[in-house]
Amino acid sequence: MNTTTARAYRAHAPETLGAALAELPAVAARLGGTVDDWRVREVGDGNINLVFIVEGPRGSVVAKQALPYVRLVGESWPLPLARASFEHAALVEQARHAPARVPEVHHFDESQALVVMEHLTPHLILRKGLIAGTVYPKLAEHVAELLAETLFKTSDLHLAAADKKQKMKFFCDNTALCKITEDLIFTDPYRDAELNRHTSPQLDALALQFRRDTPLKRAAQELKRRFLGDAQALIHGDLHTGSLMVTESDTRAIDPEFAFYGPMGFDIGAVLGNLLLAYYAQDGHEERPGARDDYREWILAQITAIWEGFEARFRALWAEAGTGDGFVAGLFDEAADAPAAAAAKDRYLRALLADSLRFGGMKMIRRILGLAHVEDLESIEDPDRRAAAERRALALARELVLFGEGVASIHEVAPAARFHRLR
Amino acid sequence: MNTTTARAYRAHAPETLGAALAELPAVAARLGGTVDDWRVREVGDGNINLVFIVEGPRGSVVAKQALPYVRLVGESWPLPLARASFEHAALVEQARHAPARVPEVHHFDESQALVVMEHLTPHLILRKGLIAGTVYPKLAEHVAELLAETLFKTSDLHLAAADKKQKMKFFCDNTALCKITEDLIFTDPYRDAELNRHTSPQLDALALQFRRDTPLKRAAQELKRRFLGDAQALIHGDLHTGSLMVTESDTRAIDPEFAFYGPMGFDIGAVLGNLLLAYYAQDGHEERPGARDDYREWILAQITAIWEGFEARFRALWAEAGTGDGFVAGLFDEAADAPAAAAAKDRYLRALLADSLRFGGMKMIRRILGLAHVEDLESIEDPDRRAAAERRALALARELVLFGEGVASIHEVAPAARFHRLR
Repeated sequence: MNTTTARAYRAHAPETLGAALAELPAVAARLGGTVDDWRVREVGDGNINLVFIVEGPRGSVVAKQALPYVRLVGESWPLPLARASFEHAALVEQARHAPARVPEVHHFDESQALVVMEHLTPHLILRKGLIAGTVYPKLAEHVAELLAETLFKTSDLHLAAADKKQKMKFFCDNTALCKITEDLIFTDPYRDAELNRHTSPQLDALALQFRRDTPLKRAAQELKRRFLGDAQALIHGDLHTGSLMVTESDTRAIDPEFAFYGPMGFDIGAVLGNLLLAYYAQDGHEERPGARDDYREWILAQITAIWEGFEARFRALWAEAGTGDGFVAGLFDEAADAPAAAAAKDRYLRALLADSLRFGGMKMIRRILGLAHVEDLESIEDPDRRAAAERRALALARELVLFGEGVASIHEVAPAARFHRLR
Repeated sequence: MNTTTARAYRAHAPETLGAALAELPAVAARLGGTVDDWRVREVGDGNINLVFIVEGPRGSVVAKQALPYVRLVGESWPLPLARASFEHAALVEQARHAPARVPEVHHFDESQALVVMEHLTPHLILRKGLIAGTVYPKLAEHVAELLAETLFKTSDLHLAAADKKQKMKFFCDNTALCKITEDLIFTDPYRDAELNRHTSPQLDALALQFRRDTPLKRAAQELKRRFLGDAQALIHGDLHTGSLMVTESDTRAIDPEFAFYGPMGFDIGAVLGNLLLAYYAQDGHEERPGARDDYREWILAQITAIWEGFEARFRALWAEAGTGDGFVAGLFDEAADAPAAAAAKDRYLRALLADSLRFGGMKMIRRILGLAHVEDLESIEDPDRRAAAERRALALARELVLFGEGVASIHEVAPAARFHRLR
C-alpha cells in the first residue's frame, strides 16, 4: 500500500479515474492490461461520496472519493475531505484486528481524499438481503468477530494508556462527521427540525409525542454526552446494515468515515437496532401474513447470536490479551480473587449490553422520525402498512432507550420485540 | 505574556536564573532594578520540579522549571519536560474561567520547561494551615468557584463538540503524568508494590487486607477505566490540599501539570478526600482530647459547603452558559419540559457527587497505603496515634469507593465521617 499526497484535489469522473489509477503500479497490476482495458462505473448510492468500481482484465478495485459537500444535499452542506483520512486510518486499524472482516486497502491518496480498496464481489449490502428475506449462515459469527476484535483491541482493556491516547488524538479531528451524528441521532428527532420527516399523516401524532417525551429527551441527551465524551474504543461510528456487505460465506464492514474514540455500545447498538428495524419491516415485505414468520425469527436469533458471539469472543480476548491499563489482571491472580475478576468482567459486559440496547434504540428512532430513513421501511409502499411497522419499532426503541439498563440478558430482547409487534 | 522557544534545555540554579529573567522585559520590569538587585531562592519542596522565588526592588515572581526526572527519586525515574507545557496550557485555560483562583502567568519558555508566574504571597499551602488548625473563611466559596468554573466551562455542557475535542487533543499527550496517577492511585495500593509504604507494624494486617479486598480492587479498576476514558472536562488532575494556596481572604490552585480531559469527580474528590484526611488527622494534632473538636467540625462543614457551593454555581452556569453540545436546552423550552430539564440536571449532579466521593475515597487510600503520603498524617509522630487516624480514614474511604453511588446527598458525608471516627 502506498500513500501519496500534495496535488490539488479534483473530484473524479469515470473518464478521469482510470488515468489516475494507471499511475499506481500496484493498482494497475491488480487490474491487469492498461487503462484502455478498464471499465469504470460510478456506483455511489450513499449520501456523501463518489464510489467507483474499476474492472480490468485481471481483477477489479473500488475507488471511493470524498466530495467536499454532502452529495444528498449539495454544495450548501460542506463536509471536509479529511473524512477520507479518518476512513483510511480506521480501515487500517480494523484490518490489524479483524482482517477478514474489512476490505483490503490498496492505496490512499490524501490530497485526493481517495481510498482504493478491495472490490467486494459478489457481496450485497446486508440491508438489501434482509429486505429480500435472505438467510446468511455466517452473519452472526462474523459480526461478533468484527465487533469483539475491533472494539477490544482498541480499548483500555488491551492497550497501554499512552498508546491509546495517541490513537485517540488522531481521531479528535473527525468532528464534522461526529457532529452529523450528534444532531441527526441525538437531537433532531426530539425537536421540530426542518430536515425531519416521517410517514404522514399516520405518524404525525406520535412524532409530536416524541418531541414532547420528556424522559426520552433527557435520556437522549445523556446518551449524547456519552457519545461526546466516553472514549472507550475506536468505533466505526455508522455500523448499520447498509455498512455491512455479505455473501453466504463472508461479511465485511465498509465505510468507517465516522470513526472516532467513542462508546462501544454505539457500534453494537447500530447493528442490533438496524436488525430490529428489519424485523419490524418484514410485515411490509411478506406476500401473505405469516409468510415471513421463520425469517422474522431468524432475524431475532441473529440479534441474540451476535451478542452472545461478541460476548464470548470479548471474554476470550480479555483472558488472552487483556494487557491494557484498564484492568490490571495481576491484581486478581490469587485463587481467592477469581470471583472478583469474574464479577468485574460480568459488570463490564452487563453495562455494555445496556449501552448497546440504549444506543440501538436511539438509532431506530432516528431512522423513523429523523432525516435519514432506511430502505427496509421506505420500501413498504403502502403508508398504512409502513406506519404500522414503524409504530411497533418506535415502541420497542423507546423502551430500550429508557429501560435498557434493566435488561438482564440478551435473551430478553427477542420476547420484547415480539411483544411490541403483537400488542 | 510572551512565549519563547528553541534553546537547549538547562536546569537553572539560583545563580543562572536571574540572567535568564533579565532577558524578559516584562518580567524584569515587574521585578524592578537590575539582575544584581534580585534575590533568587530555590524553594521547591515538591517532588518533581525546581521552584524559585525571585524578589526585586519592585516586586517578586515565581519561576517553576521542570526537571527531566522525578526529583524525589532521581535520574533513574525520567519524566518528560513537556509537562511544563501542559501546566502552562492548563493555567491559561483555568485563568480564562476563574482568573482570581489561579496564579497569573507572566512568561512561558517551552524549551526551558519554565513557567514564570505570580508570586503568591503571603499565601500558605492549605495543607499546612489545616495541620495548624487555621480557619479560612473564604475557602469553601473559592474552591467551589474554582471547581465549578473550570470544570463546567471546559465540558460538553458549555463547549461545542469540535472546540472541546481540539482542547482535549492537546492534552492527549500528557500521558507520562497520567501514568503516575494510574499506577499510584488506582493500582499500587491494591498490590504488593515495591514503592508502597504504611505505618508498620500497626497497619500491616490492614494493608494486606486491602490487597485481598476483592470488591475494592474491582471498584478501583472500574474507576481507573473512568480516569482513562471519560473525557468529561479539563481537570487539574492533582488538586489535593497541597495544590491550594490560601490566605484568610484568597485561595489559588497551583501545579496543574497533571491536567488532561478526565472525569470531573477526580478533581472534586481530590479536594474532599484530602479534607477528610485532614479531619482524621486532627486527633494527632490536638493538644488534649477534644481540643480540636470545633476545628474538626469546621473541616466537615467545608466539605458540605464546597459541594453545595459548587453545585449552586454549576447549576447557575448551566442556566446562563449551557450552550454546549452536551445538553441542547432548546429541547426543553416548553413549560411542560421544565421538570425533565430539572431531572436531567439533578441526575447529572447526583452522578457527579457519587463520582466525587468514589474518587475521593481512592485518593485517601493511596495516601495511607501507597507511595506518596500526606503531611497531615506523617507529622503525627506517635505511630500508634497516626495508625489510629489512618484506620478511621481507611474505613470511610473504603465505604466511599464501594458505596458512593448510594450516597443521596452531601449531607450524608459528615455523619459517615463522624461515625468512622468514633466507632
